[in-house]
Amino acid sequence: MTVDVERALAEVLPAEAVITDPDVLAAHRRDQAEWASSGMPRVLVRPASTSEVQAVLRVATALRVPVVPRGAGSGLSGGANASDGCIVLSLMRMNRILEVDRRGMLAVVQPGALNGAVKAAAAEQGLWYAPDPASWEFSSIGGNLATNAGGLCCVKYGVTGDAVLGLEAVLADGTVVRTGGRTVKNVAGYDLTRLFIGSEGTLGVLTEATLRLRPRPPKATTLVAAFPTLVSAGTAVCDIMERSRPSVLELMDRTTVRAVESWKPMGLDVTAEALLIARSDAGGVQGEEELALMVAACERAGATSVMSTADEAEGELLMGARRFAFPALEQRGATLLDDVGVPVVRIPELLAAVERIAQKHGVLIGTFGHAGDGNMHPTVVFDRKDPEAQARAKDAFDDILHAALALGGTITGEHGVGSLKRGFLGAQLGPETLRLHLAIKGALDPLGLLNPGKVL
Amino acid sequence: MTVDVERALAEVLPAEAVITDPDVLAAHRRDQAEWASSGMPRVLVRPASTSEVQAVLRVATALRVPVVPRGAGSGLSGGANASDGCIVLSLMRMNRILEVDRRGMLAVVQPGALNGAVKAAAAEQGLWYAPDPASWEFSSIGGNLATNAGGLCCVKYGVTGDAVLGLEAVLADGTVVRTGGRTVKNVAGYDLTRLFIGSEGTLGVLTEATLRLRPRPPKATTLVAAFPTLVSAGTAVCDIMERSRPSVLELMDRTTVRAVESWKPMGLDVTAEALLIARSDAGGVQGEEELALMVAACERAGATSVMSTADEAEGELLMGARRFAFPALEQRGATLLDDVGVPVVRIPELLAAVERIAQKHGVLIGTFGHAGDGNMHPTVVFDRKDPEAQARAKDAFDDILHAALALGGTITGEHGVGSLKRGFLGAQLGPETLRLHLAIKGALDPLGLLNPGKVL
Repeated sequence: MTVDVERALAEVLPAEAVITDPDVLAAHRRDQAEWASSGMPRVLVRPASTSEVQAVLRVATALRVPVVPRGAGSGLSGGANASDGCIVLSLMRMNRILEVDRRGMLAVVQPGALNGAVKAAAAEQGLWYAPDPASWEFSSIGGNLATNAGGLCCVKYGVTGDAVLGLEAVLADGTVVRTGGRTVKNVAGYDLTRLFIGSEGTLGVLTEATLRLRPRPPKATTLVAAFPTLVSAGTAVCDIMERSRPSVLELMDRTTVRAVESWKPMGLDVTAEALLIARSDAGGVQGEEELALMVAACERAGATSVMSTADEAEGELLMGARRFAFPALEQRGATLLDDVGVPVVRIPELLAAVERIAQKHGVLIGTFGHAGDGNMHPTVVFDRKDPEAQARAKDAFDDILHAALALGGTITGEHGVGSLKRGFLGAQLGPETLRLHLAIKGALDPLGLLNPGKVL
Repeated sequence: MTVDVERALAEVLPAEAVITDPDVLAAHRRDQAEWASSGMPRVLVRPASTSEVQAVLRVATALRVPVVPRGAGSGLSGGANASDGCIVLSLMRMNRILEVDRRGMLAVVQPGALNGAVKAAAAEQGLWYAPDPASWEFSSIGGNLATNAGGLCCVKYGVTGDAVLGLEAVLADGTVVRTGGRTVKNVAGYDLTRLFIGSEGTLGVLTEATLRLRPRPPKATTLVAAFPTLVSAGTAVCDIMERSRPSVLELMDRTTVRAVESWKPMGLDVTAEALLIARSDAGGVQGEEELALMVAACERAGATSVMSTADEAEGELLMGARRFAFPALEQRGATLLDDVGVPVVRIPELLAAVERIAQKHGVLIGTFGHAGDGNMHPTVVFDRKDPEAQARAKDAFDDILHAALALGGTITGEHGVGSLKRGFLGAQLGPETLRLHLAIKGALDPLGLLNPGKVL
């Protein structure tokens, strides 16, 4: 069978696009979710065009071989992890930015283009591609689309899906479909663009995207505020959301603040229960006014200190605290990064639940994330060499998912279900909605060849 | 068969929810798209709860009777038009606003609630439900969801779908599914919320929606600018979009301006080829600065006159010109209101094409619409009593759809496909994407009972 598959692929693809070198295969068997299981692919294909993707999928369908699509491999949920004997389909050779239309404020790109490359191409035309997952320098647009990736900008500018006008996708049987287009509004038929976005490679292979660009926002004003309690920080978040349109609204809990301060001392208040970092990019006087509004909201909620600046460079320094959150926690041990969402009003309850979970399992959990969206990243830190600690970390991770669901939340806000959280999807969706997912999966991929074992 | 259906419905619904009075049925056979065909329903049901909707759909499935869901009947594409012998399912008794969560900035509503009622309930809490189709005072949220309705606010705040966090829907077989939730970000599973939104009642019956509310924006500044050519107006639109974030950016062509001025004289420049109306709701100094930016863009593009005001009340008067656009055209005769979208940069070409189409068919066409989104409403005016004029109007209408497609556009930006444009969907989507639509329809509604003859 392996020989058949290789031979069939070699017949339809250039030689350099079909790779069976075991070292290369091993390097393509997983993403960054080290705890998610993975298998050994039988072959890696690196198509250079939509028609080569079609050719791969036709072979896969003819020979009934599973296909695992893959971008830059920066995923955090095992969504790109190989199963034994699958074809891994890397989109990284399809990495061209086909067009930047300055007047039309859109870009047409291939899936292997890095998010940062799209940002740079937009910036060359004086425009801005907003979506900014933390991985923006090394994650591909295709991967961003597959997970509907978020980031810091979402609180004002939305998620990846909000920046997509249209897609080209290849279905499991090799059929090419195009969704959406170049118009901002379009209600002709079902919203298949959004159906593909966030479907983690289980419904089709995305081969092109038309992305919406925006004017570059003005320089941002910034604040960092320390709070004596989780509830007071939560109150400030709600007040800020009710009275202003922050371009960033991030939270770090005490554990995270302490990890940052001990790794990169910058004078953070390590006695605070939580730190908020907020920005306004309204610009000019308005940006300063919005900053003042947000400072007032923090003070009213009981912040023990608020630093603020209208200077962009100083603001970037303050943002450093947030950017160091995850790497600082990584200094403390191996990490298991979670990604849950709750209604914004319930953030304090989520953080309190996480503290209880940390105590219950005797693990360190630092929580940080996108407070304005209720999307938090509780990060379980553990000793990789201690199997018992690993087991407790995993239990804590799972308990965090249950806690988010109990608060009316979601098991994933921006990283995706992948293979890591597959077992929890039913608990969130319920059996009827899960069955509907399966019906849709069956309609698009009746043989179940696309990224099996992921999401559903 | 009719008796069976009535009897089966009467067994599962209260007596007042099952209506067969011919006059009432006749009043429920169509929406506002008078040119779309309609049939006579056998029965009208008015369920008061999700479980009653389930009961109706179970009967429909058991007896294989088509069901046409219906809101307030303000649709413009025949999407709610009955077919002969169908069950019309009115959601208008399910019109409660179940919850307004001020802190969480969301509302949970039933589909029969009017858009205006949701706006009012949000306003009571100092919040804002943004989506504002022209029909907002008399259209239902369910209808807005079914068509993914747009409006004037979309250029800054997006369409209906951008304001929806979650849905409850009943599938054709009576299964209740819930999609999304109360969180802003959520990538657990497929985006079924967006799949239902804009599906025009063909995939399920929406029975509840969780809607995102926003802070009320500041008072708006306003400008009206007159342009000597379509191209110069188009240039101004692109410049404004590139340099600012207008909360309204509307266009009226010469025919529309003249119709307004002759109906409600307000000193509009009837020699202009196009008028732009733009607003900024950035507020305060920023609102005035953004207005100045937009005024400068209009002048740079060659506007022959620009009126602008930072006064809200004066701005509302200027907005009157736009609000009168459609009623003013209706003074001239019967109208056939189209709804096409093109990339914003191609608006001048669309308007030029519409002028050629008007000349070719010897009809009057006034075009106005949402310039910032490229979503235009060319409105064919004709003499209802003249069958030959009607035929020419219909030909012009169809030619406008082809013109939009030729410009890389869409046959509908916000009104939906309904039955009116069903024949054109394939031309936009192509056979492969159309087949994918049918596969999804088949997965959700295998017997094809939900709103047959619409969209697909």
